[in-house]
Amino acid sequence: MPTLRIALAQDNPVVGDLDHNADLIRRAASAAAAAGAHLLATGEQALTGYPVEDLALRHSFVEASRERLVRLAAELAEDGNGALPVAVGYLDADGAPPATGDSPASRGLRNALALIQDGKVLFRYYKRHLPNYGVFDEDRYYTAGHELHLARIGGVDVAFTICEDIWQEGEPFAVAAEAGAGLVVNVNASPYEQGKQERRTAIVKERAAQVGAPVAYLNIVGGQDELVFDGGSMIAAPDGRMLASARRFGPELLIADLDLEAARGGDVANHSSRSMSTALHRLSDAPAPLETRIEPSHAPDLDRLEEIWEALRLGLGDYVRKNGFASVIFGLSGGIDSALTAVLARDAIGADNVHVVAMPSRYSSSHSLDDAADLAERCGLHYSVEAIQPIVDSFVSEIAISGLAVENLQARVRGTLLMALSNQHGHLVLAPGNKSEYAVGYSTIYGDAVGGFAPIKDVLKTLVYELATWRNAKARSLGETEPIPENTILKPPSAELRPDQKDSDSLPDYEILDGILTGYVDGDAGREDLVAQGYPADVVDRVAGLVDRAEYKRRQSAPGTKITVKSFGRDRRLPITNRFRGK
Amino acid sequence: MPTLRIALAQDNPVVGDLDHNADLIRRAASAAAAAGAHLLATGEQALTGYPVEDLALRHSFVEASRERLVRLAAELAEDGNGALPVAVGYLDADGAPPATGDSPASRGLRNALALIQDGKVLFRYYKRHLPNYGVFDEDRYYTAGHELHLARIGGVDVAFTICEDIWQEGEPFAVAAEAGAGLVVNVNASPYEQGKQERRTAIVKERAAQVGAPVAYLNIVGGQDELVFDGGSMIAAPDGRMLASARRFGPELLIADLDLEAARGGDVANHSSRSMSTALHRLSDAPAPLETRIEPSHAPDLDRLEEIWEALRLGLGDYVRKNGFASVIFGLSGGIDSALTAVLARDAIGADNVHVVAMPSRYSSSHSLDDAADLAERCGLHYSVEAIQPIVDSFVSEIAISGLAVENLQARVRGTLLMALSNQHGHLVLAPGNKSEYAVGYSTIYGDAVGGFAPIKDVLKTLVYELATWRNAKARSLGETEPIPENTILKPPSAELRPDQKDSDSLPDYEILDGILTGYVDGDAGREDLVAQGYPADVVDRVAGLVDRAEYKRRQSAPGTKITVKSFGRDRRLPITNRFRGK
Repeated sequence: MPTLRIALAQDNPVVGDLDHNADLIRRAASAAAAAGAHLLATGEQALTGYPVEDLALRHSFVEASRERLVRLAAELAEDGNGALPVAVGYLDADGAPPATGDSPASRGLRNALALIQDGKVLFRYYKRHLPNYGVFDEDRYYTAGHELHLARIGGVDVAFTICEDIWQEGEPFAVAAEAGAGLVVNVNASPYEQGKQERRTAIVKERAAQVGAPVAYLNIVGGQDELVFDGGSMIAAPDGRMLASARRFGPELLIADLDLEAARGGDVANHSSRSMSTALHRLSDAPAPLETRIEPSHAPDLDRLEEIWEALRLGLGDYVRKNGFASVIFGLSGGIDSALTAVLARDAIGADNVHVVAMPSRYSSSHSLDDAADLAERCGLHYSVEAIQPIVDSFVSEIAISGLAVENLQARVRGTLLMALSNQHGHLVLAPGNKSEYAVGYSTIYGDAVGGFAPIKDVLKTLVYELATWRNAKARSLGETEPIPENTILKPPSAELRPDQKDSDSLPDYEILDGILTGYVDGDAGREDLVAQGYPADVVDRVAGLVDRAEYKRRQSAPGTKITVKSFGRDRRLPITNRFRGK
Repeated sequence: MPTLRIALAQDNPVVGDLDHNADLIRRAASAAAAAGAHLLATGEQALTGYPVEDLALRHSFVEASRERLVRLAAELAEDGNGALPVAVGYLDADGAPPATGDSPASRGLRNALALIQDGKVLFRYYKRHLPNYGVFDEDRYYTAGHELHLARIGGVDVAFTICEDIWQEGEPFAVAAEAGAGLVVNVNASPYEQGKQERRTAIVKERAAQVGAPVAYLNIVGGQDELVFDGGSMIAAPDGRMLASARRFGPELLIADLDLEAARGGDVANHSSRSMSTALHRLSDAPAPLETRIEPSHAPDLDRLEEIWEALRLGLGDYVRKNGFASVIFGLSGGIDSALTAVLARDAIGADNVHVVAMPSRYSSSHSLDDAADLAERCGLHYSVEAIQPIVDSFVSEIAISGLAVENLQARVRGTLLMALSNQHGHLVLAPGNKSEYAVGYSTIYGDAVGGFAPIKDVLKTLVYELATWRNAKARSLGETEPIPENTILKPPSAELRPDQKDSDSLPDYEILDGILTGYVDGDAGREDLVAQGYPADVVDRVAGLVDRAEYKRRQSAPGTKITVKSFGRDRRLPITNRFRGK
């Protein structure tokens, strides 16, 4: 039984930065070659970043990707790593160049993987299954491939597949099984959702059993706008054993020695009942040399709240860094949302890069300012206080307004102050709103919703409390100061925009609100389903009405890391102009 | 040769308002029956509105659509119009109800058309071709149909198709031809783009020639978020003659008497080489009675600027009305953009519903205030003046800012004032920015970009001038006062946020800027293409850099009617986090 040393580069590419991404691949190849690996795989579209969205429709970008791949092949050889076969994910096209008015389909765009060796591209595999649901729009761009490629490496036939390919029972895994693959590599750009790693693990084991050979599942890592790629690469055996696994939410070069079935000999057969043909590329027939064996590494599982925290931290940090910012600024109210945002920001980019501003009005309670100052000190943040009342008064003396208009005005004066400080000092403004309040429109557009990124936009209020409690407990367990003041967690939430205001004046208890939102926003539950679950009909109607009316506001709010529990995890694309109220 | 009297209901449905849309269909049926029509067709998804986006994924909405269709059939019979065959566009599903985690495909969602007669649904046709480019995402929702239905009405076999079906040369039109259709009805929800009506006319004539029978092309009308459906329904003969046509941008019941080939007799044949089968439904074999003939109506062509104006007017008016607003408010600077917005708003919803506010700062020139007041008086708008300097000063005395931060602050104070007035009085705020400035980021987010709808967001600055000149000329030709002061058109554009500021300090001449934007934003032109077109390389680089950096700001701006020249007309979906600069 031949043994192959496989290396999986769980890296953090940047969309559009071909040179940076190529450098990551070169570094991984040097490390893999130094470790004596026989094959290196990189993530789905690791050369271009994922998803490139409509950049795929720009001819110059497609050409840049194709050319960079060829140059990378030469560079790997120049680096002295030419002998190592490297599978590189990238963007390709094999149709005619676009003419004006052409449909994208005519360009033959491909979500592709190339195997590189000795400065040359040996073959190009095109993704067989194109996901077009949830956050995925691949039918909009790509043409599916119908040829499975196997590389005979050290006497083992290795098949290559991309992401969605593994979620299908038929082609290409069934074809890999028929072709006698000794290993199937599946490269991914799979975004984080709650509970997804368990589903991935189950499907990787299922496919390994189906093929009768190990499956090496590689995922990228890093934040990209609203998505977070969470790593967690793994190799599973056909009997369900986990042979190796990489950590979540960080880069790693996962290396494992795998005992694999030798190739059958002869060429692989093509089955007429399949839409996919197969092609075999003989790189080396003899078993690869291996002096000593490497002990495979296994990453620990994360508990639910740590997993969510890490997703939020990585999403925020990468949004800041990849967009060229060094620091952030936002309002610190003394409440739980901005407190959690502050600790996340500190964990993501460091206390010295976090600027917080307390902006009390006449309705702010004294404990608010105390709690804000307390948190800033515990976390070591840059803290300042700006009074907004004189500015609010100058507005009110110019125009006759009252009630809600004045409440919102206070939030907008704060947003304008933060944007002025952002313009002056170059900080990125963060919007500290949570998912519960954005969902029902309980926030002020152009006010507290101001910001380039909303770190906890996808976190329901009840989860905000869970995370705050968890983060404090983690600090205690490490012997550190609890970052969030106890009073911030215990006091009843309030927007403090009018005297003695409480969230509970306007909204149901958050336990009930979040339960309804989980069914109505994340799920497909209609009014009757929610009433059947035990929620009072009048509360369901009120919340559904608020959600329906808040759609415009949600569209205008900043991006934030998705951590939804929904399988097809992203905000629904709903018409703004829409009168359907019977849902 | 039998003659059929065909009625096409070019109506303005509201997304999600099933009862309203059903009422439109009932009224059209009453009018068509009273006129002695033998067949009435309604638009694509006329019962649900189009596009319903992710409402299609909500099970309760799908059920509501299916049930409303059945009820509509009963209502048409109760109205005494049961004998009239009515083709109704709606949303259907014939898959299993969704389970948690199901892919949308398993639900078997259908973009459907039902033929109703005598209180019953005679058949359901499912759209064969699902567009998935530009503004269309139909692969995300729908499953394609593979059965063509023909109804024998008055001895003529009439085939039914939906929208994208007509843009394909093969099925279903080739099948209709083989089946001997005497008329093909094609119902649409086709959004306006510049030059599209000419392309539609050409394809309708091409298909009529292919089938050897007239093609009745029906489009809906009305604004829906960023889309405007522009009507322009038509019936073309196989020899290329236009038999009848409806107006653009308004509802119409188009009725025409068509001399059609009698059905071949016998059943229609199914061709094994096709993926589509055919089904024939015999409603009436004998030629339909017709006492006198109706003179068909022909709508005049619109010139380019009138067409654009009407698209903007309808898009703005429907956005306001369909979202439940009665009035609008925005800042009037004395410049060309807010002047054009004011005239559009007046034309769309009436002068008495338009509130404009002049908000001079210390950098506003005296002519700006004069020009604003002049325009408000010419148009009969509600006009007020609010000084912003004291408010700006109150900010500057609180925080130390300078330069660009102060420039933006002025715009944000104006935005906050408008939002306060909106909250107080219930007006929808309009953002008067044009496409050139949004594209390069020459606007202030949370400042002049504040608003629920941006009426000229998709109008390049050079086109703003053309439209202003055209609208004044139209007023002259009608003997009315020119709405826009000459000085507003003639003076050099300025943001007036610092002393003697001019747009030309920061941007290339608008002729050059707009030329580059047309290639780079609407088109697929890269740097080299634009330089080859004669634009200076340094200007191309500068503009491309500005566009790339403005992506986030564009995403945060309000919707506005699309009037792009691009075939696949909508903003590109680009990653915010994206480092590709070589385009």
